[in-house]
This record gives sequence, C-alpha cells and structure tokens, in this order.
Amino acid sequence: MTDPGYDRIRAVEWKNERLVLIDQRRLPSVSEHLSIDTPAAAADAIRQMVVRGAPAIGITAAYAVVLAAQSRYAADPAGWKLSIEGDLRLLDAARPTAVNLRWAIDRMRRRIQSMPPGNPVAGLLDEAKAIHGEDIAANRRMGELGAALIEPGSGVLTHCNTGALATGGYGTALGVIRAGYASGRIAHVYADETRPWLQGARLTMWELMQEGIPATLIADSAAAFLMKQGKVKWVIVGADRIAANGDTANKIGTYMTAVAARHHGVKFMVVAPTSTVDLNTPDGNAILIENRSESEVLGCGAQRMAPEGASAWNPAFDVTPAELIDAIVTEKAVVERPDAQKLAAMMAG
Amino acid sequence: MTDPGYDRIRAVEWKNERLVLIDQRRLPSVSEHLSIDTPAAAADAIRQMVVRGAPAIGITAAYAVVLAAQSRYAADPAGWKLSIEGDLRLLDAARPTAVNLRWAIDRMRRRIQSMPPGNPVAGLLDEAKAIHGEDIAANRRMGELGAALIEPGSGVLTHCNTGALATGGYGTALGVIRAGYASGRIAHVYADETRPWLQGARLTMWELMQEGIPATLIADSAAAFLMKQGKVKWVIVGADRIAANGDTANKIGTYMTAVAARHHGVKFMVVAPTSTVDLNTPDGNAILIENRSESEVLGCGAQRMAPEGASAWNPAFDVTPAELIDAIVTEKAVVERPDAQKLAAMMAG
Repeated sequence: MTDPGYDRIRAVEWKNERLVLIDQRRLPSVSEHLSIDTPAAAADAIRQMVVRGAPAIGITAAYAVVLAAQSRYAADPAGWKLSIEGDLRLLDAARPTAVNLRWAIDRMRRRIQSMPPGNPVAGLLDEAKAIHGEDIAANRRMGELGAALIEPGSGVLTHCNTGALATGGYGTALGVIRAGYASGRIAHVYADETRPWLQGARLTMWELMQEGIPATLIADSAAAFLMKQGKVKWVIVGADRIAANGDTANKIGTYMTAVAARHHGVKFMVVAPTSTVDLNTPDGNAILIENRSESEVLGCGAQRMAPEGASAWNPAFDVTPAELIDAIVTEKAVVERPDAQKLAAMMAG
Repeated sequence: MTDPGYDRIRAVEWKNERLVLIDQRRLPSVSEHLSIDTPAAAADAIRQMVVRGAPAIGITAAYAVVLAAQSRYAADPAGWKLSIEGDLRLLDAARPTAVNLRWAIDRMRRRIQSMPPGNPVAGLLDEAKAIHGEDIAANRRMGELGAALIEPGSGVLTHCNTGALATGGYGTALGVIRAGYASGRIAHVYADETRPWLQGARLTMWELMQEGIPATLIADSAAAFLMKQGKVKWVIVGADRIAANGDTANKIGTYMTAVAARHHGVKFMVVAPTSTVDLNTPDGNAILIENRSESEVLGCGAQRMAPEGASAWNPAFDVTPAELIDAIVTEKAVVERPDAQKLAAMMAG
C-alpha cells in the first residue's frame, strides 16, 4: 500500500550528514526545515519544540549523538567516548517527561561502549537509522493491532498530535487512525485542538487533511458534550511515558478526556511503542511532569490574550491512571485493562 | 464596603439617551465603548458578542427596547405598540440559548402593554433601569449566599466570565468569588481560559486582577489534573439557562468540568439570578444550543491556526445535568442537589 500523505511527512531526517527537522512551531502556515549540525542545537530544537512527540524526540536525539560523535572523534580519536558523555547528558536533559529520549540515548550509549577503535560515525548512524526504522515499523504494527479493536464505522476522538510529525513516520494513535480509516473501522475523526500549543488544530488536522480522512476540530472542553451525543466510540491517544503499572503520562488534557470517556462509557486506547514503556517508573506519581512557560497559556501563538501581569499554570503533561485505560497498544501486543503484571509480561514477550 | 474594581466596570450603561457597551471582543488589550442607538444595532452587538453573558444581554435588550420605543413612538404615536413588536422579535432572536434575553424582553413587553397613551420612553427607561438595578442587587445577594457554602481558605475554579462584564455589575459566579475572597473563604482562584472565545483569559483574569484577587489561568483541559492535586474545593460557574429540573446550559466546557469535579469529589456550584431559571423548559434536552462560526475554533482571535479548509464543531454552550450540580444559588435561595420540586419551590418562594 502506498500512501503519499504520511510518506511525504518526515519530522526528522538525516540528509547530507546533517539532522534536518521540520519546524513544527510554524506549521501548518509555514513549512520550513531547519538543518542541525551540533548536539547543542538539537537539544535546543527539542526544548523549543521545533520537534516534539515522544518517539520523534528520541529519534532526533539518536541522530544528534551521531553529530556529537563526528566532532568528538575528530577532536580526540582516542578519548571521544569519554568526552561525548557531556553531549549525551545535554540531550537527555532537554525535556524531562518523555522517556523515549532517555531510551534512545541509552541505546546509543550502549552502542558507543561496544564499539571497536576507529571512526564511529558510520556505526552510530546505522544505530540511529535502526531506531528510526524500527519506530516506523512499530507504528505500522500498532496501527493494525489498535484498529482491530474498533467496531466498523466508528467515530473516534484524538488529543494532541501523534502522527508522522510526532514519530519516525505514520504515527502511534494517528497510525491506528490511518489504519482504522483504511479498513473502514473508523468513519470520522474528532481532533481536540490541544491548548496551549494547538498540536491538534495545527498538526493533526494538517495530517488528517493530507490523507483525506474526514475530521472535525473541537475545543478541548467540548469533548464531553461530543461524547454525550454518542459521536465517539474510542478516544485514541499516544503517550510520553507509560509506567510499570500502566499509568500514562501524555499531553495535558489527556487525563480530563479519559475521565470524560469513562463517564460516558467511551473506550480509551493508549498507543505507544515499547520504547515509551518504562518499567523503572513504578507508577504515575514517579513521573516528572514538565512545566513550560506561562506565556504559552497567556497567549495564543504570538498573540497575547491575558492581561499583562497575569499568571498561568502550564503543565505540559498529565497522568492518566491505568484504571481509566481500556487498552495499551504497543508493537508487541494489545494489553487490555493494563496492570503491572500484564505490562511486564508484554515487555518480556 | 466600597470596591473600586467592579464599580468601575460596566458592560452595559445608559448614557445621554444612548445604550453604551464596552466592546468585549477587544478586551483586555483595547478598552473601547460603542454607542448604540437602534435596536438593530443592539441585536448585532449581542450576536457578535460585543456584549455577552446571560444577564448582560438581557439588560442590553431592555435598554434596546427603550431605543425602539423612542423611534416607534416618534414615527407613530398611536400605533407604536404594534410596530415595536418587530423590534422585540429581532432582539429576541439575537442569541438562542440564554433565557435572560427572552425574560427581559417579555418583561419590557408586559410594561408596554400596560402603558397609558403618551410618550412611553421615560416609563420604559425606568423599567430597563429596574432590570439593571435588580440584577446588581441579585448578584450581591448571590455573592453572600454562595460564599457561605465555601470552607475558609479554599481554592476554587471558574469557567468563562461571569463577572461585572457578564452582568449588570458585580457578577454571578464571580460575585460569589468576590464575596468569598473578601470574607476569607476563597484564597485562590483558578480561571479556565475558556476556548474558543477566551472569556476566562481575557475577561475573568482582567476582572480578578483589578480586584487584586490571587488568580492563575489554566488551559481548560488542565482542570482535571488541577483537581487531582487537591487545589480546588469548588467549581463555581454561571448559567445561560436553568431548566425546571435543574439541568443547566452554560458555556461550552462547563459540562466536562462538572464531570471532572464529580470524579474528584470537588463540589460544583451554579450561580444565576432567577431570570435565568426557565420553568417552561422541562430539562436540558429542551434547550436549544447555539452553534457559532467554525472560525472561532479554527483560529485564535484574528490568528488562523488550523489548516485552510479544515472543519470545526463550535457549540457555544453545553448542558450540565442536575445530578452533577451540588448547589444552584439564586438571589432567592440556595438549592442543594437541585431537582424540579426544589426549583419550583424556590421560584415560588
């Protein structure tokens, strides 16, 4: 099956020995690619959300390690494995909540540690490309697994952006939506606009329109009223970190949507690759939630909305407890009514 | 007690034989007053949300009837009571959900019908000013009644704007917040930004800052995560229509917030004058919910956010069922766990 839509969209690419990112702060009105040639610039791009989405920032960090190795090896062919550690830590600290960032850096670090003497760049690029390729393959598999849970002809609701832009390509929750639409299981998609950054309005609607998938944008707070009218059978979201017991950190508003879904008997699906599952995080209380700048809530894009001097609280994520989740879908399996035992078995399987 | 803050704010005024409205579309960055001299211009101002808030649009319509009487009586001193009916219908049709609009027009119509021959303007202006003054007095009384329900030192959450700007002055839910803060029952206010029109970010934060009431703005979808952290004891909102059984239409997002409140054991208070209670509407299913332009959700203020060609669903209100409401506060009484019998008794009382 060829699908020009999501094959055209690449949030993260390796081109001409550079990391190339589409600037997601400016989409959909401006489509600009930034060329990144240092790990510090990559960390900045992650911090400022040029690139966002847990899998996409993991892949970005992996390529950034290649950039780091290029300059560290050139400067000190004997000692680069020590000096690169500062770069790895800088990247790791760029954003705290999504565990994929740490997961990708840890995997690159293990590869570094096992490397023989000599120029490491080709080997590390292979590893980064493997991370990228495996993510796309995982998304495809999750798409099939998740879509199979959905009754034909359903309306679904999604929050934030979990598509090609948030991943290596295709998408997690949006991958399930692509697969579900292709197979007739999903008839209509409602997208939360996802304040304050408007990933839903700007990015998800853009991806859905490129696919020709029927989609309607709503204010985040309209989701409960939509559910009450029977318009959605499933809420389908991604994840930034899934704790060992199934508690899931995801974009702010996910938890409120999960509470509303349970109230209305609407099913709730979390779709994320196993790189998002962190068995070292026992439960949601152990997940560090990033607080971002108040200015994101005080305004809208570049436009100031609240009075000068106003204060805001801007947690970038919240935690949805496992008991509100009907299914966690990874590339390995569907875990229904997740708990610690089922998740451990899935990860080991 | 003098309070320069809310005494300074007047959404609706009668000045120099004209209706004067502060243009709420432009607050807080621009404070501009529009002078209205025809009922058609008043209907436009209501429709375009120059003035909004159920009590404020009722008061606006009452003054607009005075403008209508001026010109209808001048044109036809014998037949004006017939010809003014078109103006009343035009005003009544400006917005469908808030019942205060119809309530105010019905009251002005009854006054018209009972008038002796002669120039009706002074008598109708008295009636409009009475509606306005009674609204402020009702707000003061509701402020006392509602605040008394709140435990000292509480954090509260409010949605939309229900302050001086939404009423004759002082406010409904925001009146309870003013009174509760003055008496130490409320220590901190969280304000939902209230997409798509951002009444919370633009108007509520502006009023709270003028009062010096400690306030924090949040994205609407962050409310559940805030509740989970134990930061709020009550959600306090206004109403656009309260049906006979207590089901309450209010700004979109109110219902989702009520669902989240119940999930967390947070109490939910609706504050509205008896002019908002419509015993002719049996329940929430009978309330017509206004759908506003998609452009409000597709962008933010003047800034387009979603891709060109995108569709949106933009219900301006939703319905919170009575079973999610812990107290309805009117100027007559507090109705706890509202139902049809208790509301009928309160209205008769």
